[in-house]
Amino acid sequence: MAKQWMRMAVLAGAMTLTHMCIAADVSGNWIATIAAQPEPQYTRVSLKADGETLSGMWGMSKIDGTLTDGKLDIKLTDAQGKPAGEVTSTITGDTIAGTGTILAGSGRGGRAAGGFGGGMGGGRGGPAGPVSFTLARALVPPATPRSLNFEPANFFATYSAANKPALTIFPGDVVHTWTADAGGVDAQGVHHRGGDSNIGPFYVEGALPGDTLVVHLLKVRTNRSTAHQATRMNAHAVTAAYLVGAQYDPAVDGDWTLLPDKGIAVPTHPSEHMKNYSVPLKPMLGCISVAPAGDEQFRGGDLGPFGGNMDYNDNVEGTTLYFPVFHAGALLGMGDGHAAMGDGEVTGSALETSMDVDFSVEIIPGDSSGQVRAETKDYLIAFGVTGSVPDSIQVSTSQLATWIKQKYKLSDSEVAILFASTLKYDITELVDSKFNVVAKVPKSVLSTMK
Amino acid sequence: MAKQWMRMAVLAGAMTLTHMCIAADVSGNWIATIAAQPEPQYTRVSLKADGETLSGMWGMSKIDGTLTDGKLDIKLTDAQGKPAGEVTSTITGDTIAGTGTILAGSGRGGRAAGGFGGGMGGGRGGPAGPVSFTLARALVPPATPRSLNFEPANFFATYSAANKPALTIFPGDVVHTWTADAGGVDAQGVHHRGGDSNIGPFYVEGALPGDTLVVHLLKVRTNRSTAHQATRMNAHAVTAAYLVGAQYDPAVDGDWTLLPDKGIAVPTHPSEHMKNYSVPLKPMLGCISVAPAGDEQFRGGDLGPFGGNMDYNDNVEGTTLYFPVFHAGALLGMGDGHAAMGDGEVTGSALETSMDVDFSVEIIPGDSSGQVRAETKDYLIAFGVTGSVPDSIQVSTSQLATWIKQKYKLSDSEVAILFASTLKYDITELVDSKFNVVAKVPKSVLSTMK
Repeated sequence: MAKQWMRMAVLAGAMTLTHMCIAADVSGNWIATIAAQPEPQYTRVSLKADGETLSGMWGMSKIDGTLTDGKLDIKLTDAQGKPAGEVTSTITGDTIAGTGTILAGSGRGGRAAGGFGGGMGGGRGGPAGPVSFTLARALVPPATPRSLNFEPANFFATYSAANKPALTIFPGDVVHTWTADAGGVDAQGVHHRGGDSNIGPFYVEGALPGDTLVVHLLKVRTNRSTAHQATRMNAHAVTAAYLVGAQYDPAVDGDWTLLPDKGIAVPTHPSEHMKNYSVPLKPMLGCISVAPAGDEQFRGGDLGPFGGNMDYNDNVEGTTLYFPVFHAGALLGMGDGHAAMGDGEVTGSALETSMDVDFSVEIIPGDSSGQVRAETKDYLIAFGVTGSVPDSIQVSTSQLATWIKQKYKLSDSEVAILFASTLKYDITELVDSKFNVVAKVPKSVLSTMK
Repeated sequence: MAKQWMRMAVLAGAMTLTHMCIAADVSGNWIATIAAQPEPQYTRVSLKADGETLSGMWGMSKIDGTLTDGKLDIKLTDAQGKPAGEVTSTITGDTIAGTGTILAGSGRGGRAAGGFGGGMGGGRGGPAGPVSFTLARALVPPATPRSLNFEPANFFATYSAANKPALTIFPGDVVHTWTADAGGVDAQGVHHRGGDSNIGPFYVEGALPGDTLVVHLLKVRTNRSTAHQATRMNAHAVTAAYLVGAQYDPAVDGDWTLLPDKGIAVPTHPSEHMKNYSVPLKPMLGCISVAPAGDEQFRGGDLGPFGGNMDYNDNVEGTTLYFPVFHAGALLGMGDGHAAMGDGEVTGSALETSMDVDFSVEIIPGDSSGQVRAETKDYLIAFGVTGSVPDSIQVSTSQLATWIKQKYKLSDSEVAILFASTLKYDITELVDSKFNVVAKVPKSVLSTMK
């Protein structure tokens, strides 16, 4: 009897120890991968174990649960205090796997379990539905951000989540790399895949669908002395009468010589009129992208809400870009350097050349936008990529308005006052598969907002 | 017999004197008004009489003729040495009237006898046709340009050649005047006709169809402390979703206080967020126009190749505008002052206020363009006013290309190099009957052209 008691006490002690170990282990941040078609969904989960009592958050839903014998039983409650689901799961090694029911919008189904505009889980959606999921520990970025030299080997001439990541990076890491020109030629004259190909993709650890990927362009500089441009006006930029009447001079070859010490580019074989012609160097990346939504695939010259061949001549050193994340890891790519570019890329190409690029990334969890946004020293910027210039104007204006309303807690009326007095547009991409119009407001004016 | 001889001698002397007087009188510059439907055509004519021999130019055609007994018999020869017509006319007082045949394109028929892009008469057109015409002396501007104070009394809310000129001015005259705001309210709060009404029109002596009217905006300054803007986003500027979702705050009233001493405008009744909000004053004229072609009539809010409600926020003090002239005298008008304006006028109005305006004009004879052009301190600019933004882009780009080709003697290839590297666009008018997109290139770059 005594032995029996002792055995039970030992067993109880061992169980308590086991429970305590597991309790200590289970606390922390996890990523829930929820099985779904055509692709899994993701939710950020935080767990806190206190003895057998579990608390925390599942997306935007509050967790009340128990942890008993390696089994987690969790009830979810939404922000309004209403039931949002129930899940049960078991711990196996470093992962937790389970099933249950979760209200749509609370971390089940939908494009982005991380939620769009709704923090880490979104609002209430449809009725509760069955889910099966795994939880994996959220990886923690290195205490000291890394400095990574990345030598591109593959050049992707498509935007697609199917492209295999070339490097996994954490927020804060500084990546030192280079891009080839749009034709695939690098600083040494080596030919890689062209067609507005991108280097990468870079898998950003911790980026989930519904997040915003923040990309800091720390360095964008030409790395060779030559560039080339097309020499005929594109049909989107001029009238049919101009196109028909234009008489092009085959002696004007579109070759440029880059003189970074002087900060200028000059025609390599200038015509008599242009012997003194020069333009300031303003090195930019024509292409910068995340993987597009779902199983969409676009060619390198295309552009969309995922970015791509946006051809914005302020995507320069010092600019920060904000991308909606459509896939885990975001899958960041970049390429298509321009030494300088007029608005609209009206000859179909700018001063095409290769670039040295340094960049770092951040993640804004659970906050996404319909299209790419940016920030320069002087402006807050929203892109509008659509199939027509008028639509691009409407999309960029609306996206900028929505962003500023959110960021500065303004009403629609206040945005109207702001825009009527200070809005600027740039027509940046006229000649590719889609059009890009940029709406922007000066930060000097925004800084006066209370 | 002796007496008879003497009478004849006296008569002969008198006739010679008369011929000599007439010969002396007839030399100089004339404007030929050629009868045509639906409106007369005009050609510049220069005559030189040497005894009974007449020489000079009729538009682009060379004159060979005789002046006998107050009768001018003229043969015209085009630039290629081919016959271009014959006219005969008689002098009566200060005018000469006549008939004949003139080749189309040599000063007969067509929209602009002054010629488009063809100097003072245009090229060869169709077959010779009958004409009847009068010649009147071309008036010479005062040796010292005048300073004219013009107090507007009529406000025209239409663009039309039917509007009666309020003042006749010569090139070089400086006109000091003022404009009401778009609603017709002046600096003293007096209400005049609104609807984007223009002051004037000013009849510019010597301006003929086919010329370019050059307008120098010498002064454009706010002349009262109040402005007002509409407070809702226009449907052309934002998506339908934004329009439907926008929740406007009736407390935001769109009133502005202008502080020219500080160079800023501030909301008069600012919301809490905008208590520190201010924008730089950049006083501009929303409307500036010549009379549109033929008997076209447009309302004050409309815009076109004649200018009108172009709403370009660089139509400021120091800017020079170039208008195609469609009617004798050009019929210049202006109004619709904005103390500041974001691109696109996205709420349908800017900071609407009245202005003090000084201006002067020049005429570039026989050189016209399809639409309005401009020049600021920094840019050469072409407007593109059409029924769609994509068309406006094409028109402004093509017009700028054509202008620069002509002005700097560049080839289409050289323009392509220039545009690919330096072109800028402004989307300036999104919300009225037509759209206005501005294409421009920096003068700093153009100044390097040989």
